[in-house]
Amino acid sequence: MNKRMILRILGIVLMLEAAFLLLPVLVAVIYRERAGWYYLYTALGCAALGLILWRGCRTSLQTIYAREGLVTVALCWIVLSLAGALPFTLCGDIPYYLDAVFEMVSGFTTTGSSILPNVEALNHCSLFWRSFSHWIGGMGILVFMLAIVNMEGGQAIHLLRAESPGPSVSKMVPRMADSSKILYTIYIALTAVEIVFYLAGGMPLFDSLCNAFGTAGTGGFSIRADSFAGYGYYFQTVTTVFMALFGVNFSIYFFMLRRKWGLVWHNSELRWYVGIILGSIVLITLNILPMYPRVYDALHHAAFSVSSLITTTGYCTENFDLWPEFSRVILVFLMLVGACAGSTGGGLKVSRLVILVKAMGNEMRMLIRPHTVKVITIDGKRVDADAVRAVSSYFLIYVLLTLVSILLVSLDNFDASTTITAVFATFNNIGPGLGLVGPVGNFAMFSPLSKIVLTLDMLFGRLELYPMLVLLYPGTWRRK
Amino acid sequence: MNKRMILRILGIVLMLEAAFLLLPVLVAVIYRERAGWYYLYTALGCAALGLILWRGCRTSLQTIYAREGLVTVALCWIVLSLAGALPFTLCGDIPYYLDAVFEMVSGFTTTGSSILPNVEALNHCSLFWRSFSHWIGGMGILVFMLAIVNMEGGQAIHLLRAESPGPSVSKMVPRMADSSKILYTIYIALTAVEIVFYLAGGMPLFDSLCNAFGTAGTGGFSIRADSFAGYGYYFQTVTTVFMALFGVNFSIYFFMLRRKWGLVWHNSELRWYVGIILGSIVLITLNILPMYPRVYDALHHAAFSVSSLITTTGYCTENFDLWPEFSRVILVFLMLVGACAGSTGGGLKVSRLVILVKAMGNEMRMLIRPHTVKVITIDGKRVDADAVRAVSSYFLIYVLLTLVSILLVSLDNFDASTTITAVFATFNNIGPGLGLVGPVGNFAMFSPLSKIVLTLDMLFGRLELYPMLVLLYPGTWRRK
Repeated sequence: MNKRMILRILGIVLMLEAAFLLLPVLVAVIYRERAGWYYLYTALGCAALGLILWRGCRTSLQTIYAREGLVTVALCWIVLSLAGALPFTLCGDIPYYLDAVFEMVSGFTTTGSSILPNVEALNHCSLFWRSFSHWIGGMGILVFMLAIVNMEGGQAIHLLRAESPGPSVSKMVPRMADSSKILYTIYIALTAVEIVFYLAGGMPLFDSLCNAFGTAGTGGFSIRADSFAGYGYYFQTVTTVFMALFGVNFSIYFFMLRRKWGLVWHNSELRWYVGIILGSIVLITLNILPMYPRVYDALHHAAFSVSSLITTTGYCTENFDLWPEFSRVILVFLMLVGACAGSTGGGLKVSRLVILVKAMGNEMRMLIRPHTVKVITIDGKRVDADAVRAVSSYFLIYVLLTLVSILLVSLDNFDASTTITAVFATFNNIGPGLGLVGPVGNFAMFSPLSKIVLTLDMLFGRLELYPMLVLLYPGTWRRK
Repeated sequence: MNKRMILRILGIVLMLEAAFLLLPVLVAVIYRERAGWYYLYTALGCAALGLILWRGCRTSLQTIYAREGLVTVALCWIVLSLAGALPFTLCGDIPYYLDAVFEMVSGFTTTGSSILPNVEALNHCSLFWRSFSHWIGGMGILVFMLAIVNMEGGQAIHLLRAESPGPSVSKMVPRMADSSKILYTIYIALTAVEIVFYLAGGMPLFDSLCNAFGTAGTGGFSIRADSFAGYGYYFQTVTTVFMALFGVNFSIYFFMLRRKWGLVWHNSELRWYVGIILGSIVLITLNILPMYPRVYDALHHAAFSVSSLITTTGYCTENFDLWPEFSRVILVFLMLVGACAGSTGGGLKVSRLVILVKAMGNEMRMLIRPHTVKVITIDGKRVDADAVRAVSSYFLIYVLLTLVSILLVSLDNFDASTTITAVFATFNNIGPGLGLVGPVGNFAMFSPLSKIVLTLDMLFGRLELYPMLVLLYPGTWRRK
């Protein structure tokens, strides 16, 4: 384990966070809020610590192996969250530091679960920092670092792989730094288009920025207590569309830019993703039809909720906890499925689902005709047995961690709906669940133990298990 | 697909059922109940149909392949249940035939879920037939057939494999018929010992028989409305011990008879099974301590519930739905885990859990040290990659079917606890769930669609997915 190198990367990440923290300082200056000072202090502290680590741990950044990559990413995210939570507590917006850490991790992991009963009481700079953390966390801080820091040598892929969602990461172009730049360019462009749509409809600039950050990162922190319910149908529809767009694998946009329409059209993950969204909207619309005056209203709210939950954003227009059980079950399933690999969304990922379903079909055929060898193919390419095994293991660990979390959270003795969906909502980086943590609820009432468990779940979910597992696994730190 | 052979085996099974049906006829004679006539008519009908099938489809029984074995077992269980449900409706004890089928499938699959609001209103012969169906279904009707019908040739293992619980079936002795005989001998002996314990405590003969059948098959149908709550501590303790004993792999008892103590002591499934039981009892006792006057009471009821749910029996002494959420979550987990492979219990089976946990540990080690090849071993024997893949696939299909069932049952719009645990309780052949299907509830309020789904779930669960899947999979019936 190359510890100097991990500390050096940590130094860079802290300096980046210092730079990001200057944005809420700017917001505080505009709105003349005293709380801005604490963001400035934190920024200076991060910059100083980052500089010390960076200067003190001079080492080659060329050799990062899988294990180091995983540990680095996990550590960076934890430190980032611990530092980013400081100004919340220092300025008094979130008095308890554990709550602030929960809120910050929820921001960076693009979960959007909140411990705040009333977000509108916050300073503008704190509101901005919450939403902006979604935007940073959506694409990933290390992907950002790779886009600006020169780290060639073929090993940087391990960092990208550890931080990016999905079972496999494909370099879009041979050079790592170029891939990262392309990703961030598409990300910034899409976010900008959404902001323009909001502004065109007459939304104030501050709201437009915060809501666009929340959508882009598929986060879900809202600057209003009623989430998106207070905005008009135009803004809700724009958000429905953009949430779905940010849940698409970003390489699809890259293919579009290169005019490779065949690759877009034949992408099975995209087809499944669109199919699941449309199917769920139809089923839920039919199910909630009696609750709304017009068919259009039912369709509108069904579409918003489906788009919000499958992409694990978590914005709400309606309290879907009041919908019939059938719709609620579909929504919970969407939480588990999640968005496409290589998007900013969380959850299990559609591509993993496709592999699992195909593996099951294969198993059935082998049972009936044991002597025919079948291979699983996706988009015409063969999925090798190792990849299938890796996805199955991922799914198993995912289920196991979910069960352990539910057990620990159940010690707080809330009802089953609350306990189970609180874990689902955080582990899959969604935000709201059902029951007490439903669209109109929050996570304030949980015990410190549950808050710690749910905070870890958010990190496990966003980093896709392995970085956190490797960090916490004793064998990692044992000498050979 | 050798259809004549499937029909011939079906004929034998129907004739066996006719023989079994004579027992409730005998009960009716003793209690002078008119309902007995309908049991006699059904027995005669089964015997006649069975004879026709058996005589009409003369073919060699030597060649049964995996596919035929699976289809045969699934068909036999369905026909057995449809025929066995007839007398319930004919004699008026259960007016609707769909309900009667639910009850009968629940009996044969050793689930113990009931649609009856008041079991005490039933005729004695019906009560006896319900409980006796647990006993037949526990060890399996085809295993019974193999014990008495001469079917050598090395292929009968496919029938045994399709009907017996667990990821692998080991022939205890070289000849199939001998294995089946040994299994049934142990089964009858253990049941007899339990009956003796009941009688020694002063329980009436009829109650002793019915309760012992329910325990032996890990079924859970009770002849009293309050399940086991009305019996004293002595009877409850006897039941606690015997439920746990029937959840043990029967080859353990075979090893004991052969005095192979080493094999018993080093059996990892047994160690995990005992470990899970003891751990759960301790956790639940501590959790429910404030609800009971004495520590002993809490311990007693915790032990009974743990033993009842991990073995998927489903007897109750207490309404555990009123316990704190932590205890309820543990009990739901126990439902999922289930008993040992090769026992009469249902669920996922402890040995599958052991394989899954070891596969996950392996995945972790491979992540940290990619160049070391690890193999999974259980009891010193290597578990090959195919077996691990098979268990993973099994688990995936299990989860998928659970989710589909929950979605369909959710159309009835009951609360989440009821919907989810109704599926768990039937799929894992447990009996009671939580909420409306809790220890004091029943399954009567579900819609016909949900009843059909839950009935199929019971069959899927008892036969461990594949027989039913192969029966329902269109590819099975397509000509090559």
